[in-house]
Amino acid sequence: VLGIVGLGLIGTSVALAARRRWPSVRIVGVDRPTVLLHPTVVAALNVASPDLRTIADADVLVLAAPVDVIVATLPQLRGIVPDAELIIDTGSTKRHIAGAAERAGLHTFVGGHPMAGAASGGPDLSRADLFDNRPWLLVESPDAALVSRARSFVEALGARAEVVDAATHDAVMAAVSHVPQVVASILMTLVADAATDTGLAWAGNGLRDTTRLASSPPEMWASVLASNADRIAPLLTDLGTQLQTLAAHLDDAEEIERVFRAAAAARARLDRTRRS
Amino acid sequence: VLGIVGLGLIGTSVALAARRRWPSVRIVGVDRPTVLLHPTVVAALNVASPDLRTIADADVLVLAAPVDVIVATLPQLRGIVPDAELIIDTGSTKRHIAGAAERAGLHTFVGGHPMAGAASGGPDLSRADLFDNRPWLLVESPDAALVSRARSFVEALGARAEVVDAATHDAVMAAVSHVPQVVASILMTLVADAATDTGLAWAGNGLRDTTRLASSPPEMWASVLASNADRIAPLLTDLGTQLQTLAAHLDDAEEIERVFRAAAAARARLDRTRRS
Repeated sequence: VLGIVGLGLIGTSVALAARRRWPSVRIVGVDRPTVLLHPTVVAALNVASPDLRTIADADVLVLAAPVDVIVATLPQLRGIVPDAELIIDTGSTKRHIAGAAERAGLHTFVGGHPMAGAASGGPDLSRADLFDNRPWLLVESPDAALVSRARSFVEALGARAEVVDAATHDAVMAAVSHVPQVVASILMTLVADAATDTGLAWAGNGLRDTTRLASSPPEMWASVLASNADRIAPLLTDLGTQLQTLAAHLDDAEEIERVFRAAAAARARLDRTRRS
Repeated sequence: VLGIVGLGLIGTSVALAARRRWPSVRIVGVDRPTVLLHPTVVAALNVASPDLRTIADADVLVLAAPVDVIVATLPQLRGIVPDAELIIDTGSTKRHIAGAAERAGLHTFVGGHPMAGAASGGPDLSRADLFDNRPWLLVESPDAALVSRARSFVEALGARAEVVDAATHDAVMAAVSHVPQVVASILMTLVADAATDTGLAWAGNGLRDTTRLASSPPEMWASVLASNADRIAPLLTDLGTQLQTLAAHLDDAEEIERVFRAAAAARARLDRTRRS
């Protein structure tokens, strides 16, 4: 029995990918009643309920809810699924959740984070192949057998498992995910206010690409940013200072070319990491 | 005879679009010798030369060089093409160029800016249909017949002409183009430094989209930013302040949700302006 708490893009895709791998697996899912009525969710689950105790029979449990919901759920699990062989989460930050799992005395918990997404959240864009060949980060643990079980599970869903410590995970995600998300969002509001609708109609693909993340679901970000604030804040502060310094040197051609050459080189480094 | 100064993405696409519309038009082009050897440029032009006097016979002249090259070229044109019926540029800022054209005594000059681009500069990605159904902004002028001529010309290339004053153009472009360009570039360097190559390999499409502009050709940006610094600097300063303010409130869930909801609403405004 596979239990899934949270049937958004990730949770529903876990169900679809598990069904693809194990056609006869029994999948039980927990979320708010409205989410459980979504046709993709209905089709993906054998049992759906808003009651957390529904996942009591789970051998493997996936927590695919927002970070704050995962943290609030962990203390309840010891009483509900004491014998689960693997409990894994998909939250966007790992230190906070790892601490909560330890305090909850969950000895089969492994932190996880699939590097997969879509243009919008929710079950609409969920896919059985969402994780195929994408990294799925696993938080290291002294229990090698447990990590090995987690690795087998996420690889069965199509992902490439990579083990990392929670602090490194959070530091990297602050840079490659959380800061770009904040920047795209604040930039979008600033640009829309300054340009008016006439100006927005003149915008090209550059603005659209740069601000695409601004359409992320607002409700999931508060707990991500709060649980990684110590890593995110220094980068945002540094970025703010660099923007203000450059604002005072816009007529310094040498400095502008230096900044843009460094950026093009950094972007080339990112492009070299692309996997097909 | 159509003259084109600058055979990059825009200038070469102007040649291809003009050839599509007027198969027997004679097109003369001026650029550095290495650029003129590019096969697409060779195929698009009837005459190619590094000598500006080559465009002496032009009835219509298009200046498709970087902003600083356009500004340096304008004073020479009165002696070379005194009778051109239309001189139009494609520079990314308009006040600076308009001033230079006026000082040069060019009475058939109209400022222009096609809202069209590609993933990289240079003739490689030039296309006859680059301007099709895209806005081509024209700077207003008291000479209605001249503006009408410019409008006919850019519409013949496939674009939708829109007339705007130079100050509005520059204010809007600061917001929808120049600031996003600076932000994408500075963010890309910051993220690459903080994440290392291992971390970059975990990045998803969000980071790739947000920093796509960082691969723009560095050499064209210095003169764009310098010629619009008074419009760009306040926006960068404001953005820097907002990032630093948010850095101090990452654990304020209400504030984070407010910021992300405003951003999602602004992004929806941008999406509504999309034209097929």
